[in-house]
Amino acid sequence: MLALAERLRRAAAAAEAAGLDALVLTPGADLQYLLGLPPDHSSFERLTCLVLRGGGDPVLVVPRLERPGFAGVGLDPLGVEVADWADGEDPYEQVRSLLPASLRSVAVADTMPAVHAHRLGDAMPGARQRLAGPVLRELRMRKDAAEIDALRRAGQAIDRVHARMAELAKPGRTEAEVGAAVAAAIVEEGHSRPAFTIIGSGPNGASPHHEMSQRVIEPGDVVVVDIGGVVAEGYYSDSTRTYCAGGEPAGEVAEVYAVLQEAQRAAVAAVRPGVTAQSVDATARAIIAGAGFGEFFVHRTGHGIGLEVHEEPYIVAGNEQVLEPGMAFSVEPGIYLPGRWGARIEDIVVVTADGCESLNRRPHELVSLR
Amino acid sequence: MLALAERLRRAAAAAEAAGLDALVLTPGADLQYLLGLPPDHSSFERLTCLVLRGGGDPVLVVPRLERPGFAGVGLDPLGVEVADWADGEDPYEQVRSLLPASLRSVAVADTMPAVHAHRLGDAMPGARQRLAGPVLRELRMRKDAAEIDALRRAGQAIDRVHARMAELAKPGRTEAEVGAAVAAAIVEEGHSRPAFTIIGSGPNGASPHHEMSQRVIEPGDVVVVDIGGVVAEGYYSDSTRTYCAGGEPAGEVAEVYAVLQEAQRAAVAAVRPGVTAQSVDATARAIIAGAGFGEFFVHRTGHGIGLEVHEEPYIVAGNEQVLEPGMAFSVEPGIYLPGRWGARIEDIVVVTADGCESLNRRPHELVSLR
Repeated sequence: MLALAERLRRAAAAAEAAGLDALVLTPGADLQYLLGLPPDHSSFERLTCLVLRGGGDPVLVVPRLERPGFAGVGLDPLGVEVADWADGEDPYEQVRSLLPASLRSVAVADTMPAVHAHRLGDAMPGARQRLAGPVLRELRMRKDAAEIDALRRAGQAIDRVHARMAELAKPGRTEAEVGAAVAAAIVEEGHSRPAFTIIGSGPNGASPHHEMSQRVIEPGDVVVVDIGGVVAEGYYSDSTRTYCAGGEPAGEVAEVYAVLQEAQRAAVAAVRPGVTAQSVDATARAIIAGAGFGEFFVHRTGHGIGLEVHEEPYIVAGNEQVLEPGMAFSVEPGIYLPGRWGARIEDIVVVTADGCESLNRRPHELVSLR
Repeated sequence: MLALAERLRRAAAAAEAAGLDALVLTPGADLQYLLGLPPDHSSFERLTCLVLRGGGDPVLVVPRLERPGFAGVGLDPLGVEVADWADGEDPYEQVRSLLPASLRSVAVADTMPAVHAHRLGDAMPGARQRLAGPVLRELRMRKDAAEIDALRRAGQAIDRVHARMAELAKPGRTEAEVGAAVAAAIVEEGHSRPAFTIIGSGPNGASPHHEMSQRVIEPGDVVVVDIGGVVAEGYYSDSTRTYCAGGEPAGEVAEVYAVLQEAQRAAVAAVRPGVTAQSVDATARAIIAGAGFGEFFVHRTGHGIGLEVHEEPYIVAGNEQVLEPGMAFSVEPGIYLPGRWGARIEDIVVVTADGCESLNRRPHELVSLR
């Protein structure tokens, strides 16, 4: 993994190249990436932020009462200074005092709460405020070997959970019961914690972001199982398989599912360096639309993944981002028949020199849970 | 509890009184307050927002694939329309299209991620963007009888956890073990879920926001226990007591603790309608400083509480907010001797017609856990 110090240097260089005088970043995936700071290192409503600036060391501004919590984070070797502020003092003024009077442009973290962004803006009326996302994205979107290795291990761990689905998701259990069993299995199979469990049985599977309910899974139900967790290094898994809860699905299921399976396969096959993100989406969409189900594929084909479960690059119409080796994202078309059932197949892939590596290897067929 | 429709009406009226043409609010405590929407009804990176506007019904803008999840939220009786947007469409443009071309000012939720705030700003270049916090604060800061009742039940539930502390926090256990036992007790005693458990033993108690560690609690340790949870209605408890883990504390502990106890008592006694938030802080601070410990009281005296564990009014120097009946906040001075030990006493109080009601009733003395 790139040394954190090198990431800080690259972020500062990318900011300068983007014409930015400074970056102001609040806790979250950006500071996990740059400082190794746990993403839950929040500060309630008190401003905590990293100030990256041309012509000076990085400074982490923290509330004084939380300063002891930063002693063990290893900021000294990174050349990051810590500055604190006490209740009653103005942290925005403190950030401004770290920056040159000639400041013209400053970018804030995409996830920074608006209250901080506005108050920083008020403290720096002469500077144009922009978003830091485009700068951080350029770094975080291109995974190095150690990051890919962490994503690979996350993918193997979630595959092991899917491999146990016949045991975990027996017909007769409620979606919520299955979700709890899956959450436990996510940890047992090597994640630090579960991140999400979507168990959509029967008509619930037709709502792509349905989570869980008290609905009992009935024999013959089609069941969408979209699950993920976080491994020790902070990287996410995310994989969907669609199951049949015993018995044989209705005749139309096999026909529709075959279309979905072909769309997902073709979209993965379309992934290689030099093509655009939107072309991968278009590949899946053309197949589903060509079979007459276009109106039932209601979401984009995929999202990047890393220290956040959804990040750049998004595999969506309009995204002209050209794919490069090291980019990692989901390929997850779905078909949703409102009030009846839905299906989705999702693998995480990493772009390689001449194609992609799929990090999820479970069978793509509709597997029976009998 | 005020009908949600009445809250929506009041929010729109308060926005108009503040010279705002519209409010744009993302999921969180604001939408929990106005719509009864669960605060975890997040939308990952996709924009979900309530648009409150003069001269039109409120509109909830949601990602199309999450629309089914809003079917059961009860928006129809509130007169809230739902508008959705599909992946690949521009949700910011959609929000703009809901507002008049003559729009001059729009306020966004304080917690809205900067990426949404900036893109809304880009979509409405003619409108000045402000923060909605000051408008929402005026409503949410003044609790009605049902809200106070929920806070009161939360206070009683956390008191029952503190009453079990001799069983939960035996010397010989680690802080983490005690934290896990306390988290379970928080649910057992009537909360829906635990919110936080700070167990600071010995020198760890000198860091006010220390959470937990593998440190074993030793006989004679002073232990700061700052805990809270959320009850079914979404309101928080938050109460701190300081314990002695068996044996007798060192002589200086009793002396310092007596100062803290007097400061907390006096600050609570100072709470009544008509005084400022900062005067309550000053009361506690004067007593601690007068005894020579001013530099060791490193945080504000308190924070408001309700659907968020920290909200307005903050009890801090510089806050000239005049207290009114129905305002609820913590009174929690502390004294922290770096590297040695710390102590804090925290009660939630609600301002009444002529003083305040304390929602936490456990003894304020240093209780022995032997």
